Parts: sequence; structure tokens; C-alpha cells
Amino acid sequence: MTTKIDLNADMGEGFGAWSIGDGVDADIMPLISSANIAAGFHAGDPTTMQQTLRLAARHGVGVGVHPGFGDLVGFGRRAIAAPAEELVCDALYQLGALRELAHLEGLHMHHFKLHGALFMHAAKDADFAQQLSAALAKVAPELPVYCLAGSALDQAAKSEGLHRVHEFYADRDYNDEGSIVFVRKVQRLDPQQVAKKVLRACQQGTVESVSGKSVAVSFQSICVHSDTPGALALVKAVRSALDNAGIEVAAP
Amino acid sequence: MTTKIDLNADMGEGFGAWSIGDGVDADIMPLISSANIAAGFHAGDPTTMQQTLRLAARHGVGVGVHPGFGDLVGFGRRAIAAPAEELVCDALYQLGALRELAHLEGLHMHHFKLHGALFMHAAKDADFAQQLSAALAKVAPELPVYCLAGSALDQAAKSEGLHRVHEFYADRDYNDEGSIVFVRKVQRLDPQQVAKKVLRACQQGTVESVSGKSVAVSFQSICVHSDTPGALALVKAVRSALDNAGIEVAAP
Amino acid sequence: MTTKIDLNADMGEGFGAWSIGDGVDADIMPLISSANIAAGFHAGDPTTMQQTLRLAARHGVGVGVHPGFGDLVGFGRRAIAAPAEELVCDALYQLGALRELAHLEGLHMHHFKLHGALFMHAAKDADFAQQLSAALAKVAPELPVYCLAGSALDQAAKSEGLHRVHEFYADRDYNDEGSIVFVRKVQRLDPQQVAKKVLRACQQGTVESVSGKSVAVSFQSICVHSDTPGALALVKAVRSALDNAGIEVAAP
Amino acid sequence: MTTKIDLNADMGEGFGAWSIGDGVDADIMPLISSANIAAGFHAGDPTTMQQTLRLAARHGVGVGVHPGFGDLVGFGRRAIAAPAEELVCDALYQLGALRELAHLEGLHMHHFKLHGALFMHAAKDADFAQQLSAALAKVAPELPVYCLAGSALDQAAKSEGLHRVHEFYADRDYNDEGSIVFVRKVQRLDPQQVAKKVLRACQQGTVESVSGKSVAVSFQSICVHSDTPGALALVKAVRSALDNAGIEVAAP
Repeated sequence: MTTKIDLNADMGEGFGAWSIGDGVDADIMPLISSANIAAGFHAGDPTTMQQTLRLAARHGVGVGVHPGFGDLVGFGRRAIAAPAEELVCDALYQLGALRELAHLEGLHMHHFKLHGALFMHAAKDADFAQQLSAALAKVAPELPVYCLAGSALDQAAKSEGLHRVHEFYADRDYNDEGSIVFVRKVQRLDPQQVAKKVLRACQQGTVESVSGKSVAVSFQSICVHSDTPGALALVKAVRSALDNAGIEVAAP
Repeated sequence: MTTKIDLNADMGEGFGAWSIGDGVDADIMPLISSANIAAGFHAGDPTTMQQTLRLAARHGVGVGVHPGFGDLVGFGRRAIAAPAEELVCDALYQLGALRELAHLEGLHMHHFKLHGALFMHAAKDADFAQQLSAALAKVAPELPVYCLAGSALDQAAKSEGLHRVHEFYADRDYNDEGSIVFVRKVQRLDPQQVAKKVLRACQQGTVESVSGKSVAVSFQSICVHSDTPGALALVKAVRSALDNAGIEVAAP
Repeated sequence: MTTKIDLNADMGEGFGAWSIGDGVDADIMPLISSANIAAGFHAGDPTTMQQTLRLAARHGVGVGVHPGFGDLVGFGRRAIAAPAEELVCDALYQLGALRELAHLEGLHMHHFKLHGALFMHAAKDADFAQQLSAALAKVAPELPVYCLAGSALDQAAKSEGLHRVHEFYADRDYNDEGSIVFVRKVQRLDPQQVAKKVLRACQQGTVESVSGKSVAVSFQSICVHSDTPGALALVKAVRSALDNAGIEVAAP
Repeated sequence: MTTKIDLNADMGEGFGAWSIGDGVDADIMPLISSANIAAGFHAGDPTTMQQTLRLAARHGVGVGVHPGFGDLVGFGRRAIAAPAEELVCDALYQLGALRELAHLEGLHMHHFKLHGALFMHAAKDADFAQQLSAALAKVAPELPVYCLAGSALDQAAKSEGLHRVHEFYADRDYNDEGSIVFVRKVQRLDPQQVAKKVLRACQQGTVESVSGKSVAVSFQSICVHSDTPGALALVKAVRSALDNAGIEVAAP
């Protein structure tokens, strides 16, 4: 029976004059416990990063780095065929950049979570997953790695002795194997249904698959993507449901 | 009488498939004691940064970050009218990115030196100089700041209690006030004359100005710009002259 | 007595997953007669450009190119110290890129209007204004140049025999000399007051300056900046006032 | 018996302060008949494009656009998973940008040749090949498309009534099927052997495959990649061999 759970969302995914998503960061931040902060490759610029760190600090939210492919126009959602060695450098570059700005704000980094197509690449590519985990074990052994349970990154991180945090995706469908059904464009979802789904996952450890089966899920964090249409309403409904059920929302 | 001096050059100023300058980094690195490493904004990408760090490590060269304006096409040589707060974030972002990759290589950062138009901006703009120095005093109080003696950054860094390293520019002309005569495009210089000029500066503390006067100079590091035409020959001649004169080349 | 006027706004100023401003392009486009379309340097990517061209075509709106400084993170609002020759190449590159995509849609280009800091640079720098006008006279002599009356670009374009279109800025204040009072951040304005101001300018050829004087203005186009807070409401109010006053909104 | 052949090379593949390859453009340009000019996505900036166009004009070389993936750090050699519609927009954007700058120089475009990973993508992906060819048939029906014989782009361009130019790759190995053996990094080649291979291909219409077989090849243009190590020596040797054999080098 879950009494405490982490709630994470992507934050700081604007760039310069642009912001992302329906719900502004300022509204979502007070409702979550961990923020995945974009670090300049798929979104986020140094000033946006600083502002997002300050916003997280004001609400006591754990700050994690959210490295993506270097692809602003594609928002890090398009796979780029690059050698594992180069992608490891890219990820550490982003980690360090955010860590320095966090340092300036007197904050410690809380976690590491890849973004978009790079997240999926690490879930599948054992070589990249291994090289990345080895690098993280050297420079950031204290940072939990948010990842898909059973993915290549999950296994590699485990083999390197890193702490892993598995996620439940509030705004994604699950298939009978307990895997997420990926879609190109996520539709607007009903906040109450999403909240109900999250609560069931927390309380019963199951999710209803797209074919109607009850599938077991195990996780330490709930993820709501901040660029899902109506993200703010989803986060509000999820947070409210957790609060009402007496489940504490807190970073791991 | 100088018996020991630092010799610094910009390193890692390629980008992806491109490299800069006549002298390749691999040839210059063994001859210098401090490397100013580009960090992705005016030049340098994460993989190039890693390779440059490894090269520096092999030759025992001190690694410094070389932050520039975010302007690849302009190589950081064009001033961009940006608020001081944003430029401080940009500089710290670059510092952190390189620091993380250095960490992966087991290296500690050795110094901080701005690049091109951002170097000049910090030399003149007291507000930016002050904000930058204050930020460095928080996140990197141990890093010496390479700067122009008497510049805005020199004064601000001093006021923040940072260690400063003043430079002698081997490949630039000086005016009667001891300031550098800036030129848009540096011409190919005679290596022996440059070496002679450096030796005089080290041994007598003077330089001959463009009008023929002997002007006092005080410095702890000699800088040769690696994108000056024929840079490798210049560094070779300078290093050889220093060696022959019994002046040890070593990082501060 | 004005019976026909152009109404222009910046369109297509998103980038990849990001969009700009309060009013979405789809809502503003039906209300205007000329669209200044971003072309990839300060905003806009090829796909966004194509979609914006199609939207303009559906509403019979004249399509103009809106070249800016190459500065996505600064949205083209920060001056970059670059030689006039390079900026002319940048502007023509953007013109050609949009023109080709317009060609694919079966559209002809309607006008040329610089963006942000590049617009201001051309208003002040006679050398850039002259070189740009000479280049436009060669490749696009048929395109009217939207510009500030009396500015360097206005004079240079005239000397090159280009057609010029002077603008009235609905969402900016004027001083006693009839010049715009530039502000870093435009505040949310009252739509009815803006509409009233535009109507007076059209019908009486005057504007009330910030000091309360009545100042003469002469123009062939009204500009509403689409990134002004509440831009959609402003455009609606202006368009409605013009319609009610029997002033036809049409491209020159 | 070939009496006339085109010789093409990639030109203008620098970016800002950087240049590519061993042989400088100025040395290669006088030896070739067609130049594939980078247009800002994988390499090339507006000013470099203008200078390259001027250089081509001085030597009477046909100017073609060389569109690549938007990936400066990867030099367009890394595939990016993007929808065909977006890639068509990207390609036309680049075509138009170069065409406008060519227009300013009084030049007409001569051909269209994709670069690197985008070239390979169009060779394999029928959907992209078809959409691209359809777009080119609308905006540039007069431009020959340089492509691999039998590739998806070759077939699509044919179906759209476009003129195609097939290439012989002087600096690549061929397998028994007459296809190129792709390698990650091309080694330095012997200029005389390359020249001999080209001559045989021109005179006998065959190439010796990596397994030693004589394989038929049919082509209207010879390609030497300007970023192959020692490219200048290769082009010199090839041009010299063609001249000596009385084969005229001229654009199709």
C-alpha cells in the first residue's frame, strides 16, 4: 500500500521568448515534487534554466537534469543517429551546465532523466545505456536515474550501482505487457479518468491495458508530461486525488 | 627578473567536422601550460571538449573554460547586446558543461578566461564584470580569472576576492598607454620577432609600443591566440626562447 | 481622407514545437491584409513557414518576408555587431528561402519588412540601408519595403527606386517628433483606446504624443505586433473600428 | 566512348570562421565543372555561400544547391528521423536561399544534389523521394537532380519528369552489384590510382569491384568529395588524366 509517491514533470521547456504547453511552469511547479529541467539541447536556455531552478527552489521541488538530443527545431523528439560516445558527452555537458547554475542558486541536483527520443534510445540501446551509466557512476553516483523498468538503461544503471526510479506515466496508455503505447501526438485527456488511473496504480499496483486487462505496474514516481494538452488540469487532478487519498507527494 | 611564466592558448576551437587555425591543437598543446577550452557557444562541442581535455591531460596542461557569446557563425567575435544577467548565466552554463566533462576525465578546472567579444565586453562593462565576478565567487572561488590588467573585469574580480592572472599578448601590438591595439584581422607575424618581444617583456618588463616608446607591462601569463595565422610557429618560437633563457613555463 | 489602408502583423513566429504570443496566427490572419513571415533566423522554421504561407493564402493575405538577426534565443531583438555585407547576405538568404516555399504554394511575395533589432539597425545605419536597398533593387525590385518614414532605410530604398510603405504603429507610443517611443517590454493595452488612436490617425492624420500634443503622421499601413500581450484583441478592435468607419482593409 | 564528362565536388562547406577539408575551395574550383554548394543546414552560411558563388562564377562552374539535414555539429552525416513533409520544406528552403544569392550575382542555378545522410535517405525512402521530386517539379523543373542510378530518388525524379544526372564516385569503392561501399571514414587514397579508375570508367564503362570483378557503370558526372583526405590531389590527378585523354570536362 503506497503512502508516499513522487510526482514529476518536465519544466523549463521554453526557449528564449517561447514557452511550451498549456499549463505554465509557475502553475505546475507547486503541485509536483520533482522537476526535469531542460538544459539547452532540445529546449531551455541558460536564463530559462536559472528561472526554472529558482521556481523549483521556491516550492521545494527536487531539480533534475533533462538532457535531450541537440535538436531545438525537433524538440528532441527525433532520433539522431549518433555514436554512443558522443551522446554520453552531450548528456554530461547538459548535466554540468544545469549543475553549475543550480550551484549558483545553492541547490543540489536531485535526479537525472533523459528526454524524448534520447530517453527512448537509452531504453533500447544497450551500448549507449552502458556507457552513459558508467559515466554517471563516475561523475554523479548520487543521482537516481529515472527510467523505464526493465529497459536497457534500467539494467545498465543497475549494473553500475546507480539508484533507479521507475515511473508510471499518467498520460500514456499501457499494453498487456505493461509497456507504454507510444503515440505521435497525445490527445487531450479527461483529468478525472487520469486521476483515477493514477490512484488505482498507487493503491492496487495495476493499470487497465488498452485491451482491458489488469496489468501489474511497479513505480516510485508518477510522470505527467507538461506538453500534453491540458497538462495543468491533469496535474491538478492527480495531485488532488493523491492528497485526498492520503498519499504524500514527495521526492524519493 | 622572471624565472617562471605561464603560456596559454585557446584550444578546442573546432566544431564538429571543423577545426580552426593553422596549428593543430595536438602540436600546440605540448608547448603551453594553460589551455583555454571552448565550451560550445562560439566553438567547441561536447565531443571536441572531451578530446581537448584528454589532450591537455596527456601533456599536464591546466584546463580552463573559455566562454564566449552564443554565436557559432561569428565565432564569438561579434558583440551581442544582451543583459548582464543573461550573459552571466551563459558563462556559468559553459563553465559547468566543461567542468562536468573534466570531472569525467578526473581533471580539476584550472582557470576562467572569456573569449573574443565577450572578453572585451567584460573588460569595459562594469555591471557585467561585477555580476560575473560575484557569480564566480560563489561557484568557483578557486579559479583564477585571466583578464586585462586594469579592466572592468580585473577590478570586479579583485573586489570579489578572486585571483586574477594578467596577460601579455605575444601576437598583438601595444600603444603608448600599454593597451592592446585591436585589429580586425591579425597578420602573419615573424616568429623570431614575436619571441624577442616576449623575452624582453619577461626579462625587462617592457614592450615597444607602435610609436616606438618603451612601455611597462606586468603579467603572469603569455597568450598566443591559436587562430593567429602561423600560430604554431609563434608558440614554438616563444617556447624555445623561454626555454633557452632559462624561464620555466608553468601554470600559475 | 483615408478610404483604404493596409493592416500588417508578424506571423509564423513560432519555432518547431513553440508558438509565440497570446493570439494564435489562425485567429489573427483573417483580420489582416499583409503578413510579415519569419524566415528561420529569429523565428520560423521551414515547416512553420509553409503552414503560415498556406494560412495566408486561405485568407488572401499578402505574404512578406520578415528577416531578422540570426538569434533564436534572443528572438532577433538583440543587436549583433556584424558587417553590412554579411547582414545583406543574411537578409537575402531569408528572402529566397521564403520565396521558394511561397513558389511551391503558387504564391508571389508581396513585401519585405525587417524584424526587431535588424529593423532598427536599418533605420539608423546608412551603410547597411544602402547596401540592402541596392541588393533588393537587383533581386526584388517589385517588393515594397515596409519602413519608418525618414529612416536610413526609407531614404536608401527611395534612392534605389524601391517602393516604400510607411507604417503607423498601433501598439506603440509616439513622441512630439512623431517618432516611436521604444520600450523593452510592451504592456497590455486597452483595445478600444488603440482602435480609437488608429481611427484618428487614419481619418485626421494625427496621433496624440506622450506629452499630449497632436502630431502629424503619414502612413500606408497599420502595424500591430503579434507578440504584444493581447495582440488578438487589439487586431480585432482595430479591424472592427476600420470596418465600421467604412475604411477598406487591403494590401497596398 | 565518352568525350565529355562533368566533374563535381562539394564546395562552400565551411561555416563562419571554419573551413573544411585539405584542399581549399579556391584550388579545387578551377578544376571542376559543377559545384555543390552547402546552404546553411549542414554547413555554409550566407556570406560563405556568396563567396563560393562568386568563386564558381569566376571559373565558369555550374552552381548547384547541396541541401543537408539541419545538423551543423554532425555535418549532415547523421540521419535524423523526420517526416518527409518537413524534409521537403527543409530542402526547398535551402534551394531558395542559395537561388536568391545566386540571383544577386547574376547566376542561374545549375543543379540539385542532396548531401550526406539526406542523400542516402532519399536514395532509400520512396516516400521522401517522391514528395521531394514532386516539389522540385513545381519549383525547379529545369534543375537536373544528381543521384544514385536506380535509387528511390532516381526513380521518383524520373516519374516526375525531372532530368537526372548519375554519378561515378572517384573516391569510393564499388561492390559486385555496382553499389558504393560506404565507410565511416574515407582513407587517404593514391591520386594516380583514383585517376586510372576514373579513366577506365569513362573509357570502358567499368569499375573493378572490391572482390576484383569488372562491373559496368553508367554515369554523366564524376564526383570527388572535397572532404576526402587529400581531395585536392585527387581532383588534380583526375582532371589531368581526363585532359590528357582528350575528355572534355564540362557541366551537363
